Amino acid sequence: MQEERILEEYLHKQIPLSAAMSVSVCAAGIDSVVLSAPIEPNINHKSTVFGGSASALAILSAWSLVHLRLTNEKHRCEIVIQSNHMQYERPMNGAFTATSSLVNDAAWPAFLKMLVRKKRARIEVQSALTCGDSIAGRFSGSFVAFLQDR
Amino acid sequence: MQEERILEEYLHKQIPLSAAMSVSVCAAGIDSVVLSAPIEPNINHKSTVFGGSASALAILSAWSLVHLRLTNEKHRCEIVIQSNHMQYERPMNGAFTATSSLVNDAAWPAFLKMLVRKKRARIEVQSALTCGDSIAGRFSGSFVAFLQDR
Repeated sequence: MQEERILEEYLHKQIPLSAAMSVSVCAAGIDSVVLSAPIEPNINHKSTVFGGSASALAILSAWSLVHLRLTNEKHRCEIVIQSNHMQYERPMNGAFTATSSLVNDAAWPAFLKMLVRKKRARIEVQSALTCGDSIAGRFSGSFVAFLQDR
Repeated sequence: MQEERILEEYLHKQIPLSAAMSVSVCAAGIDSVVLSAPIEPNINHKSTVFGGSASALAILSAWSLVHLRLTNEKHRCEIVIQSNHMQYERPMNGAFTATSSLVNDAAWPAFLKMLVRKKRARIEVQSALTCGDSIAGRFSGSFVAFLQDR
């Protein structure tokens, strides 16, 4: 669980809203990052999860995946979100989870090649929001990495 | 400023993340809702505004507009976000603002008619994110209202 604790500390320290949301890192690998949060700090007026919290958890899971994959490749990068789409499929009335993955695994080698050649490259990441056993929402986002290796 | 204080108290009480983000209501009318937040609780690892905070502020401004317009029409409704798109155009390095408006003002009468007839209707809302004088991002979202009048 070393990787998970490192990522959780990093998020809480660097992005204080993740601490305010009580985000925890359940799994942090290069295939997927799984983040979860309790409902209490993320509740809305209907006692379900606020859409802004759902969206923020998905963004964090997707950003973290690109961050971990690039760290794994020994690249030092700045990673910026460019755009995202969120589909809210059903209300979430308890702890909720965001599970990220690349939209297309096969796009990774071309992304890396572009990153090294042009010092910047774009990759699409998706994240599924779940509450209990049900899918409750779907996120997709474009992230741009800027290579900072010397 | 009565309307602004009422909305701000409502948001802080009902959606605690808005208080954690230090959201304040600058203007609350039926044409537009303007919300702002300081960077400190919304900062990221690059000392700019976290995308999840930008997205959440835009969602709150858009939701609030539909809420105020329906209250103004004396309808009691539940308003739920169905989907949204966010475009992050430039980093924000200070206090930031979300200014919402209907995507198409002319859609409002048809929305109300549908709401009364079918007890549910959908409306598109946009929100512009600004930092200083520059547009920094654009949000658009679909909201569904469920009529609860008796």
